[in-house]
Amino acid sequence: MKIGIIGATGMTGQAVYAETTSRGHDVTAIVRDVVKAQELFGVDVSVLEKDAFALTLADLAAFDVVVDAFANHNQPHLNLDLVTHLVHELRGQETPRLMVVLGAGPLLTQNGAYHYDILKNMPGAPDWIDEPRYGVTAYQFLLSSTDVNWTAISAQDSYTQGPKSDYTLGKDHLMFAQDGKSHVTSGNLAAALVTEIENPQFVQERFTVSDI
Amino acid sequence: MKIGIIGATGMTGQAVYAETTSRGHDVTAIVRDVVKAQELFGVDVSVLEKDAFALTLADLAAFDVVVDAFANHNQPHLNLDLVTHLVHELRGQETPRLMVVLGAGPLLTQNGAYHYDILKNMPGAPDWIDEPRYGVTAYQFLLSSTDVNWTAISAQDSYTQGPKSDYTLGKDHLMFAQDGKSHVTSGNLAAALVTEIENPQFVQERFTVSDI
Repeated sequence: MKIGIIGATGMTGQAVYAETTSRGHDVTAIVRDVVKAQELFGVDVSVLEKDAFALTLADLAAFDVVVDAFANHNQPHLNLDLVTHLVHELRGQETPRLMVVLGAGPLLTQNGAYHYDILKNMPGAPDWIDEPRYGVTAYQFLLSSTDVNWTAISAQDSYTQGPKSDYTLGKDHLMFAQDGKSHVTSGNLAAALVTEIENPQFVQERFTVSDI
Repeated sequence: MKIGIIGATGMTGQAVYAETTSRGHDVTAIVRDVVKAQELFGVDVSVLEKDAFALTLADLAAFDVVVDAFANHNQPHLNLDLVTHLVHELRGQETPRLMVVLGAGPLLTQNGAYHYDILKNMPGAPDWIDEPRYGVTAYQFLLSSTDVNWTAISAQDSYTQGPKSDYTLGKDHLMFAQDGKSHVTSGNLAAALVTEIENPQFVQERFTVSDI
């Protein structure tokens, strides 16, 4: 499939780029900096060099699937704002399908609250809570987007760069690996995401993935 | 104050235009169609002729206060999308203050649920439920917008064109007038909104207004 990856040079984007290209898809890195993309992916990488907020339906319609792997940890409101921008451009379109990578904040805990509601009370939370907080709003925004072909995937509480190994899927709740901790690698998230691209199971839904 | 009104030619916008000009403010109608604005407000009306989705911070920064009175009943997702666009442009700015007009959908009922959750089960709801549904999301989005100087005002269940008379304020809950029904006129909503502009009581909060 023809797949565009927004934020391809970030941690998630790199993993999704590797997974999609290894499975033979026709992949374009949608990035602001073509040089960085060429350094990471080689000079033959297919690039659409454009600020993500300037992407229009005309740009996006070139793809079967657009993956929003954009993640700005210093200005996390931009992660939310980009979701709203992409949804605005894609309303009423069946294609492209929009795949959004979310964090663990909008996952649910056993009592049905957002994991964010636990995170926000942790020591030091003010320094980093904005990112999961905006993630919850992005999730709520996607849930209301009934006129877009979207799917979201949430990472786990610990989300780190790492290879694909064994993983298991979940739906809306925080998951725990065999070591009792909540974690997933970028390689496993990318593998689950690309499998969902190839075989849609969660249309207009959010799902999640955990290391084993 | 220098006040820009987005959607000035709509029902709410007209009432806000009348109330702001009658109180001596420096008012600009931000509209797509200058002719319609001149027909309604006279040839001397101050107009910024621009599609609301094309408004940038540079446009908005000309005002002390921007009122988002935009309401598209046929494509109500645009009401939400415009809120997200304006917030994106205004993040990190103290000025202009953003005043957003919402419907009754995101008001709360006595059990703490959204009024929308009652509306959605009413006969015929599929024909018109999208507007309050997107209103709830707009409210959630505003609640997460801690870096914008916003205030929202919710109308009541019945919101109709009508003059300013006596009104009473509320906070987050659906209100009922002396006749036991939930209603507010555009004139009363505009009067409450402009009073809030002049004397801020609900910064980064939503309030509501009811006919007596």
